[in-house]
Amino acid sequence: MSDEQPADSLSRRRFFGGAGSVAVAGAGGLIAGTGGAAVVGGALADEQATDPATDVERLQATSATLSYPYYGAHQSGIDTPPQDHLVFTAFDLSATTATELQLVLAKWSAAMAQMTAGRPVGKVEPTREHGIPVDTGEAFDMGTQGLTLTLGYGPSLFDDRFGLAKFKPKDFADLPAMAGEALDPAYTGGDLCIQACANDPQVAYHAVRNLARMARTSVKTRWTVLGFGRASAGPHQKTPRNLMGFKDGTRNVSGEADFAEHVWAGDEAQQPWMNGGSYLVARKIHMLIETWDEDPIGDQQSIFGRTKQEGAPLSGQSEHDVPDFHAAVAGKPAIAPDSHIALVAHENNAGTKILRRGYNFTDGLDSVGRLDAGLMFISFQKNPEQFVSLQRKLGSSDRLNEYIRHVGSGVFAVPGGLPESGSYYGKEFFA
Amino acid sequence: MSDEQPADSLSRRRFFGGAGSVAVAGAGGLIAGTGGAAVVGGALADEQATDPATDVERLQATSATLSYPYYGAHQSGIDTPPQDHLVFTAFDLSATTATELQLVLAKWSAAMAQMTAGRPVGKVEPTREHGIPVDTGEAFDMGTQGLTLTLGYGPSLFDDRFGLAKFKPKDFADLPAMAGEALDPAYTGGDLCIQACANDPQVAYHAVRNLARMARTSVKTRWTVLGFGRASAGPHQKTPRNLMGFKDGTRNVSGEADFAEHVWAGDEAQQPWMNGGSYLVARKIHMLIETWDEDPIGDQQSIFGRTKQEGAPLSGQSEHDVPDFHAAVAGKPAIAPDSHIALVAHENNAGTKILRRGYNFTDGLDSVGRLDAGLMFISFQKNPEQFVSLQRKLGSSDRLNEYIRHVGSGVFAVPGGLPESGSYYGKEFFA
Repeated sequence: MSDEQPADSLSRRRFFGGAGSVAVAGAGGLIAGTGGAAVVGGALADEQATDPATDVERLQATSATLSYPYYGAHQSGIDTPPQDHLVFTAFDLSATTATELQLVLAKWSAAMAQMTAGRPVGKVEPTREHGIPVDTGEAFDMGTQGLTLTLGYGPSLFDDRFGLAKFKPKDFADLPAMAGEALDPAYTGGDLCIQACANDPQVAYHAVRNLARMARTSVKTRWTVLGFGRASAGPHQKTPRNLMGFKDGTRNVSGEADFAEHVWAGDEAQQPWMNGGSYLVARKIHMLIETWDEDPIGDQQSIFGRTKQEGAPLSGQSEHDVPDFHAAVAGKPAIAPDSHIALVAHENNAGTKILRRGYNFTDGLDSVGRLDAGLMFISFQKNPEQFVSLQRKLGSSDRLNEYIRHVGSGVFAVPGGLPESGSYYGKEFFA
Repeated sequence: MSDEQPADSLSRRRFFGGAGSVAVAGAGGLIAGTGGAAVVGGALADEQATDPATDVERLQATSATLSYPYYGAHQSGIDTPPQDHLVFTAFDLSATTATELQLVLAKWSAAMAQMTAGRPVGKVEPTREHGIPVDTGEAFDMGTQGLTLTLGYGPSLFDDRFGLAKFKPKDFADLPAMAGEALDPAYTGGDLCIQACANDPQVAYHAVRNLARMARTSVKTRWTVLGFGRASAGPHQKTPRNLMGFKDGTRNVSGEADFAEHVWAGDEAQQPWMNGGSYLVARKIHMLIETWDEDPIGDQQSIFGRTKQEGAPLSGQSEHDVPDFHAAVAGKPAIAPDSHIALVAHENNAGTKILRRGYNFTDGLDSVGRLDAGLMFISFQKNPEQFVSLQRKLGSSDRLNEYIRHVGSGVFAVPGGLPESGSYYGKEFFA
């Protein structure tokens, strides 16, 4: 499969027809209008009038019971179709011994299995009056909500604190300094990271909160970002928009062949535990929203290389038209060579692709009252160099740079999936 | 109807059976699992196997097209069943003339009508290359998502800047100082507020962003809070949990009689524009999460007066059992008189009720690395005194005070609804 996979009804039918595949509905609980107050548009209302209660109860149950397998060749949360909400957290270890670290990873592995199956990490309501609740309870009986928890190790985990230098993947290191960065140490780095994604934000938040809590004597939270809207499309998903108003993720990595070639790490890491893993790059990108909002439409579209409403490449008519970087209009390239899509297209980068799995965020207002908002860019790739080569190009040429600042950054080695119940992340480090 | 309205299947059936009523699905777009990767629990999967695509497409469309009327006796967003997401923003006016204020209110009134109907506030993609997009575009084609926009006026709007003193509702003033407060001026007050609620966070965010943008020469944002999870139940909704893990909103105002008695303002405000309006109280309440998490279950339950898992009053067995404040166990009250539910129960407050419509929030980490999270408490009442009398009691007696701090506060007079297209908020101020 190519990365041109359209989210059209044909592919959707093909998808839904597959044995073992299921379709699931988005986030949120039951929303019921008060009598006569809610309006549902046109044809749908007629259709629903037949038995709305059945629909709603089914949807609610579907959303609550959507789950992804925790055990397998790969961690979930990478090729999983992006859920609606993200809580990304990087942690520093305050642990000083390998045994402490081992305990954190073992506890987390078991807790992640519980929570992705919709279970609390322990008693919400202990039997004894003096018992301290093990699970904090705010996601109790909310179901799985498609929760995935993806664990990564920062380069610093392999320094001399825990004796893990020999387990460091080949060439794994902090990202090099790049043009266009204004990194804030408060949003950079970390020994460990958890990417929690779910269709309900409270379920994602609960998971990270409880992982942090159960390891509170050994880890401390370094930085965290809440994504409030998907910014990248997965296969069969409608393409969402970033906070600049443009669709993002139209040409994302899709299909097993692409994942094998571009995303899943293998022998080249020279660490068996990285087989089936990947590298997660996180970039907290602040958007200068007010400035962008005053840019004329012609310039905005030229910067992205796509139209704003439809999301079509400027060489075509429809979102999923393949960009033609040779097309010309009045003697000039239809898609400017320094447009965002031209700079990152695999056609112009020796085939390099990365899986984007980012989320929009806002932290409210900054210290001078401007919108503090942007993109929590997350990508997965077989080798961090894929991201670095693309970002070097963007940092030096992308006309978007006038409107964005990379303020946070992290790179994490994401181990392959756990094979079965009883296994735990990092087991091979402590043999 | 009493405030004991249970969200059980009986009442749900009664509700869905009503003519003109519709049931609508929660937030989020289409989430489609990759082949074989997603699992949907038990009976549901079987049921879905018949035609999942149809279900998902219908549900997706339902969520996107849910809308509430913009014109009517009351503003939407008060008796509307709480949507999944909140963006609450308070604004200061930098405008210096009444005409400027009039223009803001007229532009907002028209824009709110557009956005709650799922339309952009102007062109996303102007025809001319040099045209500046009027609408910022990030919610384009996302549908209505149940969006409601509720406008309020702070007491300061009626000071001497705009000549509006004679329009000030009777006794309308900033909330008095109360015990248990640690208010931060950065999260307090405001000349105007907008409560944006929707089942998709990007739709709510887009609305506030575009209101702020179109009035940028006349207003500046004072404070904003993003709610990421409902914390209060509306009629027919499953009761959500706050970040302390307890259900909240079991005994909320419900039904027309209750709204008439406790929520909708009338003649006593001595301002015709407040007929059908209400008063919005906003309190940003920081929770000392880590401290709470170490409190034994017996103490937690005694503090709330309810069990944690079921949410039953300690005098009963089920969530919707009416609390019996006279019940005793071993010679002591089953529900402690200084428990949260005993302190605020209408039975113990001369019948006083307020409509709670709050949301959980988290701002990530505070300056010392603790979870910066809590409750964006929002209530509506006929008179702010209803909130003040309850909060005075809570501030002086509530054992929860050990675990919470009120850090933000605002009170806003919410005018009645606009009667029809062409009318605008504040029109009566400028006649």
